[in-house]
Amino acid sequence: MEKGTSIDGVILTPLKQIIQDTGFVYHAMKKSSDGYAGFGEVYFSGVKKDCIKGWKRHNKMVLNLVVPVGEVKFVLYDSREGATSGNIQEIVLSSDSNYQRLTVPPGVWMSFCGRSEGLNLLQNCASIEHDPAEADILPLETEEIPYRW
Amino acid sequence: MEKGTSIDGVILTPLKQIIQDTGFVYHAMKKSSDGYAGFGEVYFSGVKKDCIKGWKRHNKMVLNLVVPVGEVKFVLYDSREGATSGNIQEIVLSSDSNYQRLTVPPGVWMSFCGRSEGLNLLQNCASIEHDPAEADILPLETEEIPYRW
Repeated sequence: MEKGTSIDGVILTPLKQIIQDTGFVYHAMKKSSDGYAGFGEVYFSGVKKDCIKGWKRHNKMVLNLVVPVGEVKFVLYDSREGATSGNIQEIVLSSDSNYQRLTVPPGVWMSFCGRSEGLNLLQNCASIEHDPAEADILPLETEEIPYRW
Repeated sequence: MEKGTSIDGVILTPLKQIIQDTGFVYHAMKKSSDGYAGFGEVYFSGVKKDCIKGWKRHNKMVLNLVVPVGEVKFVLYDSREGATSGNIQEIVLSSDSNYQRLTVPPGVWMSFCGRSEGLNLLQNCASIEHDPAEADILPLETEEIPYRW
């Protein structure tokens, strides 16, 4: 059977970008937003063009990702049992052309790559605080994930 | 009596910046952090060089501000009754040279100005969701605040 390209629990939510004479306001996450699963921590990750971070799988944390600067490609792999088990989902978030929030549920592998020459800035509004014990890591060239960057 | 330059309830907290071959990770706010007062919303504000936003006073929201890109000067004015009533506090946050979190309690007026030629990006991890009814606004040239940009 052909594998699908969507993963159960992954949510893409369009966000407002308000442009002003003096600058801008970009929405990111509200307590009332779709995908909100409690607040643990918010942090930034920068990723240089053509550099790849991952693979990483959180087993408790719900990720809520936005890209306020630059462009980042995400690849998700569903290692859980269930309807979308084994699926790969690819998403490109961009501050200029696709400003959305990406919600990633626990149990899904993720890696991501910077796509702009300048700064590629990712914010994660995470449901729990950073805890290495709840995350698994695999090298990019692992045979456990059927994707090659 | 000479007015002081600190304001009761305003907190500056140094934050980690982890530099990596592929990019970086910058801390911003944890649930266990000093100054955390609940999660309502996180959003970004961009402010161009020499452009000023404000004055604005939140009457319920606690602001937790970080500047992951560029440099922003903040001016705070304490309009509350109490030990630091009438004080003005000036703070410059910079992703390059002063990466800290600025906590601003309710009842304090704020305005801020972009200082870098490029992007000046501010994140507010706010204790409540945006609600125009809990905020007051004054023009920059108001006589109610003894500060001139």
